[in-house]
Amino acid sequence: MALVVQKYGGSSVADAERIKRVAERIVSARKAGDDVVVVVSAMGDTTDELLDLAHQVSPLPAGRELDMLLTAGERISMALLAMAIHNLGYEARSYTGSQAGVLTTSVHGRARIIDVTPGRLQSALDEGAVAIVAGFQGVSQDTKDITTLGRGGSDTTAVALAAALNADVCEIYTDVDGVFTADPRIVSNARHIKQITYEEMLELAACGAKVLHLRSVEYARRAGLPIHVRSSYSTNTGTMVTGSMEDLPVEQALITGVAHDRSEAKITIVGVPDEPGAAARIFETVAGAEINLDMIVQNVSTGVPASQSAGRTDISFTLPKADGPTAMAALSKIQNDIGFVGLLFDDHVGKVSLIGAGMRSHPGVAANFFAALGEAGVNIEMISTSEIRVSVVCRDTDLDAAVRAVHDAFDLGGEDEAVVYGGTGR
Amino acid sequence: MALVVQKYGGSSVADAERIKRVAERIVSARKAGDDVVVVVSAMGDTTDELLDLAHQVSPLPAGRELDMLLTAGERISMALLAMAIHNLGYEARSYTGSQAGVLTTSVHGRARIIDVTPGRLQSALDEGAVAIVAGFQGVSQDTKDITTLGRGGSDTTAVALAAALNADVCEIYTDVDGVFTADPRIVSNARHIKQITYEEMLELAACGAKVLHLRSVEYARRAGLPIHVRSSYSTNTGTMVTGSMEDLPVEQALITGVAHDRSEAKITIVGVPDEPGAAARIFETVAGAEINLDMIVQNVSTGVPASQSAGRTDISFTLPKADGPTAMAALSKIQNDIGFVGLLFDDHVGKVSLIGAGMRSHPGVAANFFAALGEAGVNIEMISTSEIRVSVVCRDTDLDAAVRAVHDAFDLGGEDEAVVYGGTGR
Repeated sequence: MALVVQKYGGSSVADAERIKRVAERIVSARKAGDDVVVVVSAMGDTTDELLDLAHQVSPLPAGRELDMLLTAGERISMALLAMAIHNLGYEARSYTGSQAGVLTTSVHGRARIIDVTPGRLQSALDEGAVAIVAGFQGVSQDTKDITTLGRGGSDTTAVALAAALNADVCEIYTDVDGVFTADPRIVSNARHIKQITYEEMLELAACGAKVLHLRSVEYARRAGLPIHVRSSYSTNTGTMVTGSMEDLPVEQALITGVAHDRSEAKITIVGVPDEPGAAARIFETVAGAEINLDMIVQNVSTGVPASQSAGRTDISFTLPKADGPTAMAALSKIQNDIGFVGLLFDDHVGKVSLIGAGMRSHPGVAANFFAALGEAGVNIEMISTSEIRVSVVCRDTDLDAAVRAVHDAFDLGGEDEAVVYGGTGR
Repeated sequence: MALVVQKYGGSSVADAERIKRVAERIVSARKAGDDVVVVVSAMGDTTDELLDLAHQVSPLPAGRELDMLLTAGERISMALLAMAIHNLGYEARSYTGSQAGVLTTSVHGRARIIDVTPGRLQSALDEGAVAIVAGFQGVSQDTKDITTLGRGGSDTTAVALAAALNADVCEIYTDVDGVFTADPRIVSNARHIKQITYEEMLELAACGAKVLHLRSVEYARRAGLPIHVRSSYSTNTGTMVTGSMEDLPVEQALITGVAHDRSEAKITIVGVPDEPGAAARIFETVAGAEINLDMIVQNVSTGVPASQSAGRTDISFTLPKADGPTAMAALSKIQNDIGFVGLLFDDHVGKVSLIGAGMRSHPGVAANFFAALGEAGVNIEMISTSEIRVSVVCRDTDLDAAVRAVHDAFDLGGEDEAVVYGGTGR
């Protein structure tokens, strides 16, 4: 008998019919003899609808109240799911993040989990009940206020509970059969990946693969907890995220897959005086506005006339599109102080990344990657690399072509067409 | 500086615009120097929509999960109201029933308040914030599960918090200017009542006046807390519920008002053997099904042939319409055992009641009441009286005529037309 934590996203519980289908799936795991803890997101578009209501009463809703509001969404879906399980003759009890013992920092809208004390869940399991837990939420250890973990937080809730309960596996249900060598919506012969290391999955998630949230993979890696990413529409085996790069056999495939990201924008700071401390002050300012940067590139300045370019440099970085206005406003304030020439904002960029643990020992990978893009006519605007990843920024209109070109060049395709079921969860 | 508890029903916070209007009203109380605690119901039809969802996944949802589901409604309205107050430049914090310290029994769907420990609300007030509390909900002292107080529970939440915080007054906002001598929708010249005793208000509420929930009046009476029932659509002074009958001046008006109720049904148990213990067993059965009876009448049996009627009696009682099927099923089970002849269910009855503290010393009131109904052609089916009330059951189609006839006969009308703003809260 195993202890399984299952997480269902918003599209899996979008209406009464789908909730009933998820209930059947949970009951079949109980029938197979497993103990089950379920983490659930808000139904379908509930979160967006609540956000819309919030903006109708206030242009800038306070974080504490926004968290109170949004957590109503999971409260609804989890209670309905418990009812649907009862209706199949099995015991189930729903718990808020707070009741489930998810203790967090007090930063509203993106709290981090400090500790998990799942005493009530353990009691429910001991009494033979399925425990249903609201994803995405917790309670501040200091202020006792309700908090949320930010987008994708339900994955993190599931992994954190699985680790605290010493579960055998954490199953993340989504709308595809797991992780693929590229997004099957773009690359029709993308190949299903049976197993992937935490490190590779981290790079994929960081590079835009939406199937798992970055923080949940970090958490699982620290806890040594296997994640099974699978479809809520089929009973196929999905992708196991487990194991470390150190354990990989030598004959391991060179490349794991191609990821892409359309969610970022690029800011270029033109003509920054090339003197010690200038870059530090710029990035302190951006960090002070609580913005997470992604890629940073510094070059000799080409955005100013030659007469001014001596001793000046251009700095570009990528960031989430939504944070663009805040970052631009914060940087404008320090323009005179630092003495840079100008600011450019570009939200028509895309990022394509190639990930593979095998590339550590194959220095030619980056060159082949750039060559494939060149042949496809894709212009490279920024480059960034890690030990197991190469990423470039290009025009967003070139992104699909770039993904296909790289996928082909590294011969990642399978023989079958990948199956896509539609919709995405939180 | 006073401490005021204000309660707003679902129609007062039905959409973003109305929430903003309520926020303005709260802020004007703050500007006048008062400390304010606000109790709020779920927006408009939210509770009914959630109930509908519940019945889509389960024909008989478990009480614990239904409470978890329904309490999402107040969570949404209270967070939005807090945001709307922030937007006017004032501090506000929302609290669930559990956070506000509303400790209850563990009977889901109709928990009773055991204790109120409003430490967090007091801290919020001390820091100058408006405290917004979810009405209708609490947390079980024993099981720590979320509970609801049943329909009208938000009134009780407001009174309980006002008592625990030692507030100066509890203001219940509704869609009329307070309590009238009859429902202004039926009697156009119904007169506004400036002040009414707890006892009279209890009788009115028990007899179908929807303006205040019965339990909240009982609670306020025990705590000696004045309730101000007033309109959320105007700034008119409403009705003060305060004082006891013992304090009334001798020249007090004979009659307070006329109440009516369309929410009940009548069950008649025909041909009950007239022997000791039969009635007791019948009402033990009904009580065992957790049904609250209202009026009970026993008569010589007329529903069976004369040959069988000797030594037999008919027993009729009224109960909430929704409880009818449960009661009929429970009674059917004991028919052979007790040996009664049959069961009749009638959901086309109405009840009209005349209430007045002054009638204690005026024995002719009941006779005049019956005479007025007779002149209006209303047939009386059941009669019940208390020290300060006379009630009769009649056909539901006769109810409006009955209310008008009684209101006229006791000369309760004012000179102005009453104002009705439309809509009702929970």
